[in-house]
Amino acid sequence: MSVDAVLTARAALSRLFEPSDMVGLALVAAAGPEQALRIATGQQAAPPAVAAETAGYLSSGGSRGTALAEGLQRWAPRIPDLAPGRDLDAIRRLGGELLVPEDSRWPESLRHLDLGMPLCLWVRGNLTRGLPVLERTVAVVGSRDSTGYGVSIAGDICAGLAGRGYTVVSGGAYGIDAQAHRAALASASAGTTATIAVMACGADRYYPAGNEDLLRTVAARGLLLSEVPPGSAPTRWRFLQRNRIIAALSAVTVVVEARWRSGALNTAHHAAELGRAVGAVPGSVYSANSAGCHRLLRDGSAVCVTDAQEIAELAGPLETPVTDTAATDGERPARPGGAGPEKGGDPTGKGSNHRAVHDGLTVEDLLLLDALPVRSGTTVGKLATVAGLSPPGVRAGLARLELEGLAVRSGADLWRRGRH
Amino acid sequence: MSVDAVLTARAALSRLFEPSDMVGLALVAAAGPEQALRIATGQQAAPPAVAAETAGYLSSGGSRGTALAEGLQRWAPRIPDLAPGRDLDAIRRLGGELLVPEDSRWPESLRHLDLGMPLCLWVRGNLTRGLPVLERTVAVVGSRDSTGYGVSIAGDICAGLAGRGYTVVSGGAYGIDAQAHRAALASASAGTTATIAVMACGADRYYPAGNEDLLRTVAARGLLLSEVPPGSAPTRWRFLQRNRIIAALSAVTVVVEARWRSGALNTAHHAAELGRAVGAVPGSVYSANSAGCHRLLRDGSAVCVTDAQEIAELAGPLETPVTDTAATDGERPARPGGAGPEKGGDPTGKGSNHRAVHDGLTVEDLLLLDALPVRSGTTVGKLATVAGLSPPGVRAGLARLELEGLAVRSGADLWRRGRH
Repeated sequence: MSVDAVLTARAALSRLFEPSDMVGLALVAAAGPEQALRIATGQQAAPPAVAAETAGYLSSGGSRGTALAEGLQRWAPRIPDLAPGRDLDAIRRLGGELLVPEDSRWPESLRHLDLGMPLCLWVRGNLTRGLPVLERTVAVVGSRDSTGYGVSIAGDICAGLAGRGYTVVSGGAYGIDAQAHRAALASASAGTTATIAVMACGADRYYPAGNEDLLRTVAARGLLLSEVPPGSAPTRWRFLQRNRIIAALSAVTVVVEARWRSGALNTAHHAAELGRAVGAVPGSVYSANSAGCHRLLRDGSAVCVTDAQEIAELAGPLETPVTDTAATDGERPARPGGAGPEKGGDPTGKGSNHRAVHDGLTVEDLLLLDALPVRSGTTVGKLATVAGLSPPGVRAGLARLELEGLAVRSGADLWRRGRH
Repeated sequence: MSVDAVLTARAALSRLFEPSDMVGLALVAAAGPEQALRIATGQQAAPPAVAAETAGYLSSGGSRGTALAEGLQRWAPRIPDLAPGRDLDAIRRLGGELLVPEDSRWPESLRHLDLGMPLCLWVRGNLTRGLPVLERTVAVVGSRDSTGYGVSIAGDICAGLAGRGYTVVSGGAYGIDAQAHRAALASASAGTTATIAVMACGADRYYPAGNEDLLRTVAARGLLLSEVPPGSAPTRWRFLQRNRIIAALSAVTVVVEARWRSGALNTAHHAAELGRAVGAVPGSVYSANSAGCHRLLRDGSAVCVTDAQEIAELAGPLETPVTDTAATDGERPARPGGAGPEKGGDPTGKGSNHRAVHDGLTVEDLLLLDALPVRSGTTVGKLATVAGLSPPGVRAGLARLELEGLAVRSGADLWRRGRH
């Protein structure tokens, strides 16, 4: 297979599949990216061996046998939008490129996600030195509505980490994330990857808009990356999935401030599931913004950390050269092809198992909720395209969301988001 | 043996022995309090069987055989001061009494200290309902130089604990301790033991002086207790030993604020050694007064607690009636006689093993340092009486302290404390 063909196939698949579409990822693991694209787009029927292997990668749920058929229904509405060449041009115009698991610069640390590993990373920034090795990266995350206390600590910690040669990974959001990137940019020495922002939208977009200058600087002096293609909007589902990439890229995930329910805790739980170290910064028991950190400390999910030195201790000794990606990942053997799920936990077929991930909603309903416009109504067909679901799946989901008051009819067969 | 004879013997022994004088406690375990007093005061030689049993209770150090002889030397200077009848009268005049292990009201929780269990408790307050059962007591301790944050939390926590029916145990010091007692007094319902102050000085003294009114109220509405007899001064050694009583009486020990090195951490470590739950309250990473709490959280010695409810969860469910002392202690069988050290960890003969406990000083040198006057000099004989050491022991210790600059000669054979 040619490099270009692999790039084109993965670029297209990253638009066809939502992040962590386990059926799609299983199909790629079974058939390779090029054949998977032909199957997913209906150009070719899945050979029985591929269908069987795909089903084998998925969990042993009853609907495993029909998962691929459901996937094909889900992907079909997006086929007309595929334009991988245009997307690859777009990222190149921004000085970036598409990084794929077949590339030697692919971060080994992501292979710990097993079947959940991203299809590819759309990257802006200087990739000539690759991504930093796992033991040189620390994720620093926290509330968007941070306090002065949290911002101050995030600054101190990230300046200390950057000064010690660590790359700070965060999510580019307001509050703790922004301060983490800023402090790392201010303290990193030239020639190193100052900081990495993992986006929930396309790498061409600056989200949130108020962080545009900061994110431009991250792209110039560090790396800005995303698993969704240029132009993609940030949705709740993509935010939740984005968090697993932050956790997987980092030797330690530190939560600086978090409310009792916070996306930062989701990142911490991804890190814990990967067996990575998790740190939480303590704060006032009267601060709602520290309640999530104290929750992590209390339930034993995180270690109490108060400065950069204590975080560096969690990351372990720094002995590997910064640019040596090949030596990243000693404890698990790298798997060729990039998606061998032989111990992939409980990879959930998106069309089969319903797992609550947010506010009690299933994955499908969350995708659908993200896709529903707030004001003017939209059609089932349009929703199928935006959400990446089959039209029958959209209808079933709308019925559930309507019961919850989360979706309302706004005309004959038009739908918009409820006020709930 | 008569009740009066036991009370008199233990009253006398508590003046003769410093707290945790393991040789003295082993002698009492071997001979019983009355014979132990006769032996310790030289009225009777130790029968070979008693000497052997005493040595058997002590650790297997090389000087075990000479420990009793050294003890007799150490105790001798204090014999002329013995006046147990006067001490018993003193506590009774204050409305209190001497509580001994032979009494059914003796708290079973103290038996977890094995050989280190106090000889007796000099108690002020209403003992008709005994001491609260273990699962109803929580120790709340912390810095003397507390911050407004710490005082506020101590108040909230102790009000919440007292309101839930727990008795708050603390040390009667300024800062966190004082606030813990105050808040418990303010929130406890009538007819319960509002709070317990465990003193490092005699129960007749108010130390520190600024807490006199508070300690009077504790004695009136709760319990004020000490293992040292009326009139005894608070010394560093007695503070350190007092902490083990606070920990042993309490199902949970909570550290509200503590510096990196703090007596409150000593109490927490006693609690951990006893297998009791330890909680630490988080705070600002910029506050030196929370550094000790974060240290406990980081090394896993303590659980993160932020309110009374979380502390109550550590203490376990409250199902036992408040006054039922007999049901206190389910997990270890009570031992008659009160000092069976068959699994007594590493009971250190005070005259034999030198264990550093404070600033690198041995127990003897710490006792001696406590006894040294700051201004005018004193004699070796006087030091032997005050410190509870033999005159040769005092001379050897003075030589060591002089090398450290902690003791200086102030005349022919007079000594005072150094400026170090």
